[in-house]
Amino acid sequence: MPALTFSLHPQLNADTTPVGDLPLTRVLLMNDANYPWLILVPRLPGVSEIIDLEENAQIQLTAEIARVSTALKALTACEKLNVAALGNVVPQLHVHVIARRRDDAAWPKPVWGVAPAKPYDDAAREHLTGSFRRALQIADARG
Amino acid sequence: MPALTFSLHPQLNADTTPVGDLPLTRVLLMNDANYPWLILVPRLPGVSEIIDLEENAQIQLTAEIARVSTALKALTACEKLNVAALGNVVPQLHVHVIARRRDDAAWPKPVWGVAPAKPYDDAAREHLTGSFRRALQIADARG
Repeated sequence: MPALTFSLHPQLNADTTPVGDLPLTRVLLMNDANYPWLILVPRLPGVSEIIDLEENAQIQLTAEIARVSTALKALTACEKLNVAALGNVVPQLHVHVIARRRDDAAWPKPVWGVAPAKPYDDAAREHLTGSFRRALQIADARG
Repeated sequence: MPALTFSLHPQLNADTTPVGDLPLTRVLLMNDANYPWLILVPRLPGVSEIIDLEENAQIQLTAEIARVSTALKALTACEKLNVAALGNVVPQLHVHVIARRRDDAAWPKPVWGVAPAKPYDDAAREHLTGSFRRALQIADARG
């Protein structure tokens, strides 16, 4: 039976720290200090592909990808953004928005499977999620 | 001086066969028989990131990604779509839309850099571009 309510896939939950919610998506920080790396997950059940979303939700997703991309670029002064919806391992629709630099651990390759994840220490993670919350003007879900 | 008119990046030109034009993008078939793999390139000069596009063009790009995704899924009965705008090597904005199967050459990894490209023979390439043109209802640019 398909899920009737949204819940975050356990793998995404394990690999990320929540930044907060935009109107459609939950914004997550990937716990990999190799790259400033956010993930957007539409808070809808049973969605695997972008084309599983209604047209209005596709447009909203695009707007939220743009909002996150702009914030990420402004905060990191990155040289390139990588935006991708893959989902071969985790089928729940999630969109990667990654800030890339010519001196990063995988450049010019895509990031997946290249360098082992380098977890943030608590202070750095807290600082970064706070910066993204302010840049995205979203409230801290922890209240 | 930034380019004033659109021209396809030489690397994209070398790696692909044109399928045809949608209102915003040129649709290309990647010359790699390992995966049914289309690439959409907005026909605008000087665009590298999705956020370089005006909001209306972002919405149109989303609609064209959905149209190509739907056609690709229908034609290939693929198990997953991979949609990505990376551009670390070729800076001209281009969006990959790739049909993935559990038995393909890279599954479950992303396709980039895994298996050497397997060029189509002429007949297969002609057949496939024709199928995509019909599925997308776009005219053959060669007239």
